[in-house]
Amino acid sequence: MHQYFFFVSPDRIKDNLAELTDDDFRHCVQVLRKREGDEIALLDGIGHSYLAVIQSIGNKSCVCRIITRQQREKSLSAGISLGFGLVKNRALESIIRDAAALGVTAINPLNTQHSVKQAINSDRLKKIAVESIKQSGNFHLPEIGHVRSLPEWLAELPPKALRLLADIDGMQRIGDIFTKEPNSPVIVLVGPEGGFSEEETQSVVGAGFIPVRLHTHRLRTELAAVAGIAAVCALSS
Amino acid sequence: MHQYFFFVSPDRIKDNLAELTDDDFRHCVQVLRKREGDEIALLDGIGHSYLAVIQSIGNKSCVCRIITRQQREKSLSAGISLGFGLVKNRALESIIRDAAALGVTAINPLNTQHSVKQAINSDRLKKIAVESIKQSGNFHLPEIGHVRSLPEWLAELPPKALRLLADIDGMQRIGDIFTKEPNSPVIVLVGPEGGFSEEETQSVVGAGFIPVRLHTHRLRTELAAVAGIAAVCALSS
Repeated sequence: MHQYFFFVSPDRIKDNLAELTDDDFRHCVQVLRKREGDEIALLDGIGHSYLAVIQSIGNKSCVCRIITRQQREKSLSAGISLGFGLVKNRALESIIRDAAALGVTAINPLNTQHSVKQAINSDRLKKIAVESIKQSGNFHLPEIGHVRSLPEWLAELPPKALRLLADIDGMQRIGDIFTKEPNSPVIVLVGPEGGFSEEETQSVVGAGFIPVRLHTHRLRTELAAVAGIAAVCALSS
Repeated sequence: MHQYFFFVSPDRIKDNLAELTDDDFRHCVQVLRKREGDEIALLDGIGHSYLAVIQSIGNKSCVCRIITRQQREKSLSAGISLGFGLVKNRALESIIRDAAALGVTAINPLNTQHSVKQAINSDRLKKIAVESIKQSGNFHLPEIGHVRSLPEWLAELPPKALRLLADIDGMQRIGDIFTKEPNSPVIVLVGPEGGFSEEETQSVVGAGFIPVRLHTHRLRTELAAVAGIAAVCALSS
């Protein structure tokens, strides 16, 4: 059975003190009924875990004294980032949960011609990502981007990454590419339900994305995202 | 945009006539308001699709005349089968949906020491699988096993398959294995929430399963199942 981690935002950690707030405070003190002097494990989402002792409990937060700090190497999926055409809430939450567990660095929902038009609740998505990293033992919280248009996102991409477009009509398999370029950062791009338009696909390919066939079947956006990330993880060393 | 398929059970196809029943009948006639003489596309779940014309509509079924029949080759994931420790309904349904879209041959829920004890609704699971193959353009309906105990399932496995156990403590990565044994049938086994017990892991390894580390993080059962299948798909040729 694995250790339970509480999440502490890095800006709540100063010297050897960490302040637990919000859901994690309530879960710790009200649900698990931890008391002053109890030992708990923390993670900060930027690569560290801590063993700490609860020093004082207030009404809305508790202060913990850090005893040991561990740094975890970035996982094998570090350097993978995900862009995807915005989908309905349930599928969106599933993407956030799974991509966070799989340890991607960044998750970017995109407005595209066929994507669902909706406001996203960033706080809720961050909570889902935090729960998922705690549960999976991932010490790195992915950055969840605000919703951007596809062209806006394309213009801001880092120049050196390997760019892969999940495309059922792609001529290459993901394995064909990875034998050649094993260890650079990877950006995986997945269309919304209904896919990218012809015009969008052209602009994506124009931006250097290689269309790769993840599967001979049409995968839903959330499944294609997971399958793409898992395939990159399996193939990178 | 892709073609919509109606599912016809193979035993409802005789000579050049196919009988649409149940949900597919209702969807075709009551929702989409198809009429006699209309053309529709069918799939039978054993590898064929059909172009057909509705010949007569009854109260509970309609008879279609088959015009052309197409046989689809097994997909790249044919020959992959999945065993997993039984999980709660929502996760179970997600596994069925995703594994069917990814084209596995068989899906086997297993009773294990840490798995959820529950009856499963086979009809509902089959419906989910049918919807998923229609949606993904998979022409092959996976066989969904009844719930068996782990030892019972182990005793009935085909002898020649490559056996992979998803195990965060595994010494090998999935890519290490696939460079050696590329094209045999593959069985992917995933533990329930809480994992296999020590004793179960020993019996599984004793049955020839190779513990492979899909990821450095702990993946939930449903995510491990998809990640494992996707990795095998990415690595098989």
